[in-house]
Amino acid sequence: MSGVRITKRMASKLPTTFKSIIYSNHNLEDCSSVLSLQNYQPKQNLSKSIVVRTLAFPINPSDINQLQGVYPSLPDKTYDYSTSEPSAIAGNEGVFEVISLPENKSSSFKIGDWVIPIRSNQGTWSNYRLFDRDNELVKVNGLDIYTAATVGVNGCTAYQLVNDYIKDWNPKENDWLVQNAGTSGVSKFVTQIAKAKGINSLSVIRDRDNFEEVAKTLEEKFGATKVISESQNYDKEFNKTILPKFLGPNPNIKLALNSVGGKSSGAIARKLQRDGLMLTYGGMSKQPVTLPTSLHIFKGLTSKGFWITDNVKRNPESKIEAVHEFVKLYTNGDIISPKDEIIPLTWDVKKFTDEQVLDLVKDGINSTGKKKLVVLNWD
Amino acid sequence: MSGVRITKRMASKLPTTFKSIIYSNHNLEDCSSVLSLQNYQPKQNLSKSIVVRTLAFPINPSDINQLQGVYPSLPDKTYDYSTSEPSAIAGNEGVFEVISLPENKSSSFKIGDWVIPIRSNQGTWSNYRLFDRDNELVKVNGLDIYTAATVGVNGCTAYQLVNDYIKDWNPKENDWLVQNAGTSGVSKFVTQIAKAKGINSLSVIRDRDNFEEVAKTLEEKFGATKVISESQNYDKEFNKTILPKFLGPNPNIKLALNSVGGKSSGAIARKLQRDGLMLTYGGMSKQPVTLPTSLHIFKGLTSKGFWITDNVKRNPESKIEAVHEFVKLYTNGDIISPKDEIIPLTWDVKKFTDEQVLDLVKDGINSTGKKKLVVLNWD
Repeated sequence: MSGVRITKRMASKLPTTFKSIIYSNHNLEDCSSVLSLQNYQPKQNLSKSIVVRTLAFPINPSDINQLQGVYPSLPDKTYDYSTSEPSAIAGNEGVFEVISLPENKSSSFKIGDWVIPIRSNQGTWSNYRLFDRDNELVKVNGLDIYTAATVGVNGCTAYQLVNDYIKDWNPKENDWLVQNAGTSGVSKFVTQIAKAKGINSLSVIRDRDNFEEVAKTLEEKFGATKVISESQNYDKEFNKTILPKFLGPNPNIKLALNSVGGKSSGAIARKLQRDGLMLTYGGMSKQPVTLPTSLHIFKGLTSKGFWITDNVKRNPESKIEAVHEFVKLYTNGDIISPKDEIIPLTWDVKKFTDEQVLDLVKDGINSTGKKKLVVLNWD
Repeated sequence: MSGVRITKRMASKLPTTFKSIIYSNHNLEDCSSVLSLQNYQPKQNLSKSIVVRTLAFPINPSDINQLQGVYPSLPDKTYDYSTSEPSAIAGNEGVFEVISLPENKSSSFKIGDWVIPIRSNQGTWSNYRLFDRDNELVKVNGLDIYTAATVGVNGCTAYQLVNDYIKDWNPKENDWLVQNAGTSGVSKFVTQIAKAKGINSLSVIRDRDNFEEVAKTLEEKFGATKVISESQNYDKEFNKTILPKFLGPNPNIKLALNSVGGKSSGAIARKLQRDGLMLTYGGMSKQPVTLPTSLHIFKGLTSKGFWITDNVKRNPESKIEAVHEFVKLYTNGDIISPKDEIIPLTWDVKKFTDEQVLDLVKDGINSTGKKKLVVLNWD
């Protein structure tokens, strides 16, 4: 994947022209129409910068929402890319390889390190990028490219959801979390992180013909303690008579993770013990979070939101910690690469015309199904 | 109202027989059918007890829910009242007058003090009650009987809602709270307590023919800063163009108080600033709390419940503080007696037969409209 390693002595061969996918405007109906491919000479002095080349970047729903103009976090638009209108580079997530470090300055990075940006809105849909300071990047050496390119959003989201809100997890006391959308990328990470901590997970998935097969995979491959269907999730009789058998004696369901909303959110909230916490980090059903009043008043439920972008903005250290811990879990064999849930689209750096690059990304935006990852082939 | 004051020397004339409205069972359909009137000799030694006579007790919805068997907090049933089955005295709130104190023991109370029970489930539907220790009661001298009989639930709820969750209220910075059910007893207390603290309040009330008149009363008499209707509460255009004019420049809406649920809860939550808090303490619409997912994720909304019963159980001191502060506000002229929202039912202690007492209470339970307060006439 990475090709010939570039050493520090090769800094004289650094690129003079960068190629980035940029936008100046937004379009709700046809967001890919706002994109163009820009070739430009960066204004910064490369010898004073951390120069990275991009190995891969995902096309995330939040990237698309930014192009549509409906996302509450947007990069500043600038004239940095030799455009006539203020522009921003698209993309928030991606994995880079360090190819040059500032001269006459110590750094915590080495040539060849794999890194990801700490903050969002840095612009990742580009062949090369420049960073000024070490504290804009975090190392992800040891991850495969699929994991590295998605650890910043999905990986960190899952890590923080499990670790940063419940401080008194006790693996000896039958502690549980419950989550809906149990087949999502984040949910699978959650399941594996929970298992590594000794926390049980109850995952709710949509009803489907091959329910047994999907449930078996989640339980056996991803370590979900138990998988149930949405219809079971709502079913009073099931919750009263069958679920308790799955949970065992005196279960402590401390945390509910909601990325669906509507009826599903109310049903997982109902499973929480007294003074439980529900964190909402998505709303796939497009229905509002719906909570029986009695859960709030008589069971002490707290319902909060989770947004990795905002968490990192408030506390960048929390992302560095999450990435480090995630890498440890991965190298320890506790996390499976999400590669089966990703469709790679190859950007052949040496051969592709600008038009081909743009078409590749637009196709990625406009096709449905699994997550698309644009992988740059530098050979 | 209080008749002849009984002095300590009159302790020899203490009652030997107590009269209490009790229940052993529950009935969801006809809850008043489970009540009976019991005459009994208390087992405790009166000379070692705090003896109080009841001045008034309200018939609260939670009292009715207890008789129905659908309330999550219930008193223990005992044989203390000479019954053949374990029984409990009905009622959770009420104001008493101290008529005798334990011999040879110091007390923070004096004969003639007006007091209310600190905890719920003490049983208040009775002519006399006994308490063992000073810390089961709190003084409410200075309140009129309507305020005294309702300060324990409505008064303390309103006080804690305003004071115990937002610690950085700043009257100089255009701080606001928003609440629905703006005509309720609790909401009127909230409005007055907020005003005394210099906090602005936006009260949402149901649409009605005499909206202007009701709004004017809430604003001019109870000090609501602004009153709007539920249809305005939901209306996007209103919220965008008209509401900002009511709120003034840079409003800080820090707290939403929800006792309605459904659409109304979502609409008041939307008005909150970033990282705002919604407290739910009732669900009049019988609809669940309904929160747009984006409020949780992108605006940092926290949604919690409020239950005075549980707060006091966890921290009895919090009720003592709330009552003391409420009495100060009342004596300072900041709180209007809720007497206009209460229908008093008189229990003529000297004249009523047991049957008449029971009928009076049953009528109070079964009639709708304003809150019923059973007032004991001891003359």
